[in-house]
Amino acid sequence: MTTKPPSGTRDFLPDDIRRREHVIGVVRDVYEKYGFEPLETPAFENIETLLGKYGEEGNKLIFKILKRGEHEHTGEADLALRYDLTVPLARVVAQYQNELPRFFKRYQIQPVWRADRPARGRFREFYQCDIDALGTTSLLVEVEILSAVSEVLQRLGFRDFIVRLNHRELLGALLKAAGVPPPLHEGALVAIDKLDKVGREGVEKELTARGIPAEVAASCLDLFGLEFPEGMRAKLRDDERALYAIGQLDEIRTMAATMAPGSRIQIDPSLARGLSYYTGTIMEINVPDLAGSLGGGGRYDGLVGMFLGRDVPACGFSLGLERIVVVMTERSMFPADVAAGGVDALVTIWNHETRAESLALAAELRTSGLRVDVYPEADKLGKQFKYASARQVPFVAILGEDERARGEVGLKDLRSGEQTSVRRHELGATIRARLQR
Amino acid sequence: MTTKPPSGTRDFLPDDIRRREHVIGVVRDVYEKYGFEPLETPAFENIETLLGKYGEEGNKLIFKILKRGEHEHTGEADLALRYDLTVPLARVVAQYQNELPRFFKRYQIQPVWRADRPARGRFREFYQCDIDALGTTSLLVEVEILSAVSEVLQRLGFRDFIVRLNHRELLGALLKAAGVPPPLHEGALVAIDKLDKVGREGVEKELTARGIPAEVAASCLDLFGLEFPEGMRAKLRDDERALYAIGQLDEIRTMAATMAPGSRIQIDPSLARGLSYYTGTIMEINVPDLAGSLGGGGRYDGLVGMFLGRDVPACGFSLGLERIVVVMTERSMFPADVAAGGVDALVTIWNHETRAESLALAAELRTSGLRVDVYPEADKLGKQFKYASARQVPFVAILGEDERARGEVGLKDLRSGEQTSVRRHELGATIRARLQR
Repeated sequence: MTTKPPSGTRDFLPDDIRRREHVIGVVRDVYEKYGFEPLETPAFENIETLLGKYGEEGNKLIFKILKRGEHEHTGEADLALRYDLTVPLARVVAQYQNELPRFFKRYQIQPVWRADRPARGRFREFYQCDIDALGTTSLLVEVEILSAVSEVLQRLGFRDFIVRLNHRELLGALLKAAGVPPPLHEGALVAIDKLDKVGREGVEKELTARGIPAEVAASCLDLFGLEFPEGMRAKLRDDERALYAIGQLDEIRTMAATMAPGSRIQIDPSLARGLSYYTGTIMEINVPDLAGSLGGGGRYDGLVGMFLGRDVPACGFSLGLERIVVVMTERSMFPADVAAGGVDALVTIWNHETRAESLALAAELRTSGLRVDVYPEADKLGKQFKYASARQVPFVAILGEDERARGEVGLKDLRSGEQTSVRRHELGATIRARLQR
Repeated sequence: MTTKPPSGTRDFLPDDIRRREHVIGVVRDVYEKYGFEPLETPAFENIETLLGKYGEEGNKLIFKILKRGEHEHTGEADLALRYDLTVPLARVVAQYQNELPRFFKRYQIQPVWRADRPARGRFREFYQCDIDALGTTSLLVEVEILSAVSEVLQRLGFRDFIVRLNHRELLGALLKAAGVPPPLHEGALVAIDKLDKVGREGVEKELTARGIPAEVAASCLDLFGLEFPEGMRAKLRDDERALYAIGQLDEIRTMAATMAPGSRIQIDPSLARGLSYYTGTIMEINVPDLAGSLGGGGRYDGLVGMFLGRDVPACGFSLGLERIVVVMTERSMFPADVAAGGVDALVTIWNHETRAESLALAAELRTSGLRVDVYPEADKLGKQFKYASARQVPFVAILGEDERARGEVGLKDLRSGEQTSVRRHELGATIRARLQR
């Protein structure tokens, strides 16, 4: 029997968790500062909630759960693992419409699962850190969302990210202007979304494989090269929706320039994003040393309507925890104290008879606010020290006979090797002072 | 299409999350103070990792995941959702044996999934808050674990919980003494585990249904009534393992009496616990107003060996987050500030032209440490106030024309209704002071 975690998933040992919690702490703090409130949904949804929401590629990548009990043998699935945090949010907004505020701003930090081919920074189980604002078409939402995620990355120490911005209606207008027939638009977007990965030639090849004539595919990619906004405006001057989209993008860029994103925003007419539910702005954040994105999002004014029967405008962004942790680890961006062990002091066991006293001393030190481990067995002191060292515990307390007789405790600083005797009731304060806490 | 979450699962709206996070914060804090370090494992495991670890009832309740792609049509499952946090831990200890310390103390707070019949405080998706210590058979581990979970409950405000304690070898000895044939022991434990729920008569009925003669079943239940430890010792005086188990229970009770559990520990010879992997002590924590337990655990010295090929002694305890939240909610045990909304101030929009200025003011207030929302549209002020009220936002900032001309901002306290003008650069400090932060 293998003891590895399933393909594409990972176990997180204590140091991994501390790095992840550091990032999550910053994300949560910034999201709350921007007025977003927490939401969580179940790991699985009824399967019909998810099917048909993620486009042709998405459906294949959903993990499906077998019916249970007497229905198990049918091989049918009635539940499916969360594929993103956006579709469950749309369901929640439809379900609790009377309890939620008119503008619902929520953040959600939970894992999602996709049966994708694993790659660097791409896993089958990964955490998304989402913010979404529902109930308004106001562009202030886009500006606030881009500000919040930019502030997260800045607080984590990123200095070189870019924020790419596009609009589904501009994309549609460009495809139309190039001569791509509307029924092929969704497929064309899937192909164009891979421009980063497979380059211009690769996209042209996929476009023709999807039934788009070679010269149309080429003209399509040429149009993406037009200057924004003036070249675009000139080319699409007869397309009212396109001009509206261009105006929106321009307005967002202008407003965001005075906020956290500053000058990082770039309008990129070839930015497509694979998910089929986007209807307006689409956004993505990239750093030079990662092929994928650190996160992405957009406006999806029609998704809630699929559950509620009437549309509720919405816009959101999702930061990828794993991508952020991978880049921060490779660049050594984590503060030193994030990597420090989780225990301040180890209380040793002098002999079998004094075990209860070691437990009592540990309880005293914990009351003083320290994180304290007790060695579990009466063992050679050297072995106990070695264990503390291996766990990176800075202080070891020894209840030797002489010390006990004097109401003292031996204290060894494993970082310096120095050993002293300390009055028992002062031990907690002494350790805290040396830890500068 | 239904918009409810799947049967036995729940959506957590902001107030729910704040209550859950309050409990998780205390749990994590106490567990860390006792020297446990964080671990997380994937939501699903290879199916063979889980099958056969939880006894006859457990296997049926495991959620199984369909193979993907071309294998989907076979109706076969190759993955399964985490059923508890203990079996994944055993796999992790086998996989990373060379990287982990000799005594590995980990905590893990993650959801698990069981296809159980939903009931009050019992869900199909629920969080377990586990601590486990591996690598030693020392009873100090049991004492430390019981102290940690008792301290969690005390810090949360529980004053009336009891800690029940038993030993699998004592249970086995009692079954043997009553005349239950060893092959029927596992089934008998499943029946006895239900004593709380179905009463003595119900258990006797289930025991006979499992092939145990009625008089043996009755004698079995009688034996559980013997006085501990002396009555037990007298009855089982020829059974060396039973005497050893009685001695261990007595020792744990004595040591724990001086620690956080104090006098709450009760030896209960009928405590069985359903999971089949326990080998030594078993423990459970109960409160009078909940039929199930707030948590349970025990020693499982053989489980890691199923993955590693050699045994590693281990003991752990799992607190149930949902159970704790249910009881705390019913008893109104949550501190008032846990229920408070997540936003300190709302910046209103005076008109379409001043939107960017509202965004800038929000950014200033956030820099001063406040959680700030911006109304997204140029709407009637009354509507904006109403929205703030509905979201329980205590302060509203107004960038009216007169105020702006004077370098001031209108500040309305929605709790008192009072409205004043404040110098713009003093606004953040003013709000913080009124919030007493």
